[in-house]
Amino acid sequence: MIPDSTIDLIRTFVRERDWARYHTPGNLAKSVSIEAAELLECFQWSDEPKDGDLEHVHEEIADVMIYSIMLADKLGFDLDDIIRDKMAKNARKYPIDTDD
Amino acid sequence: MIPDSTIDLIRTFVRERDWARYHTPGNLAKSVSIEAAELLECFQWSDEPKDGDLEHVHEEIADVMIYSIMLADKLGFDLDDIIRDKMAKNARKYPIDTDD
Amino acid sequence: MIPDSTIDLIRTFVRERDWARYHTPGNLAKSVSIEAAELLECFQWSDEPKDGDLEHVHEEIADVMIYSIMLADKLGFDLDDIIRDKMAKNARKYPIDTDD
Amino acid sequence: MIPDSTIDLIRTFVRERDWARYHTPGNLAKSVSIEAAELLECFQWSDEPKDGDLEHVHEEIADVMIYSIMLADKLGFDLDDIIRDKMAKNARKYPIDTDD
Repeated sequence: MIPDSTIDLIRTFVRERDWARYHTPGNLAKSVSIEAAELLECFQWSDEPKDGDLEHVHEEIADVMIYSIMLADKLGFDLDDIIRDKMAKNARKYPIDTDD
Repeated sequence: MIPDSTIDLIRTFVRERDWARYHTPGNLAKSVSIEAAELLECFQWSDEPKDGDLEHVHEEIADVMIYSIMLADKLGFDLDDIIRDKMAKNARKYPIDTDD
Repeated sequence: MIPDSTIDLIRTFVRERDWARYHTPGNLAKSVSIEAAELLECFQWSDEPKDGDLEHVHEEIADVMIYSIMLADKLGFDLDDIIRDKMAKNARKYPIDTDD
Repeated sequence: MIPDSTIDLIRTFVRERDWARYHTPGNLAKSVSIEAAELLECFQWSDEPKDGDLEHVHEEIADVMIYSIMLADKLGFDLDDIIRDKMAKNARKYPIDTDD
């Protein structure tokens, strides 16, 4: 789980540095893409993480999550609501194949 | 917060469709980047979300989160641990400016 | 080769639609990333293009090239100059291994 | 224009380092996305390139072009053909507005 205390930690970090002025929705969306590509770079030439690179991978996943949380927060979305809503849509789009 | 029950929902969704065979770390990292760019597309020509586009934005944020959660899970990372670890590194890298 | 007549075609297309007003450097950079991810989507679950998908792949490569050309043009860069300059840097960074 | 001699330079660079073995279509598509995001990073917090950052911007545009050229080449596409084909489709999709 990601508890509310962790989301608050992210909010406090931004507020203490007065970074909300840079954090427009568009800039945060760019930031999510930039961090996603840094994560992808860990897999540029192979499908598995390289030895010794796991800490790097977990940092990049965290960066993607942190900017996504900032953007959801900026737009007033509840994280759990939007994930559950999308999973319900996915379940309707991809029904379980019960034939095999 | 994102409770364990939501993470379990994602795990169950993948298991019921037998999709783990497609979900290599590299393929999931590609998927995070692809969804991040679909989110970015909502802001391609403007910095604010377009009227009536908010549901689309929240779906794309959710997709980024869902694939990030799948990848973290695949690699055995605890989501809260990796976010807190990265936030601690960020706090050291960007100390609070107490001068102004 | 990509002749000047093709670059002019792109310039004329933008001018005839009066799209220069939307084509800020930042918006064009977002567009390059968005199209790059649409290209990546052709390879989301496999390393080779799917049968029958080659036309889609070539359209997405073209979109990446077109937005890159628009951005280089916007900033006054000569395409051939910047590619040759970067290749020279790459050659210094990665010398040919003559040992084997 | 980008002359054939520049495309040949890129081909020779890859051949001299024996990198074709890493350059699967999927890996090259990932590389295009990774470089596109490095370009986007130049515009993460602003719409215009920062002072003194123009060389960095032109290097990143070049990297996107170089990997796109490598991928087109790998798949046997003629660059000029695919750009002209896509521009013809764009012209049909977005007719010139002659009303104003």
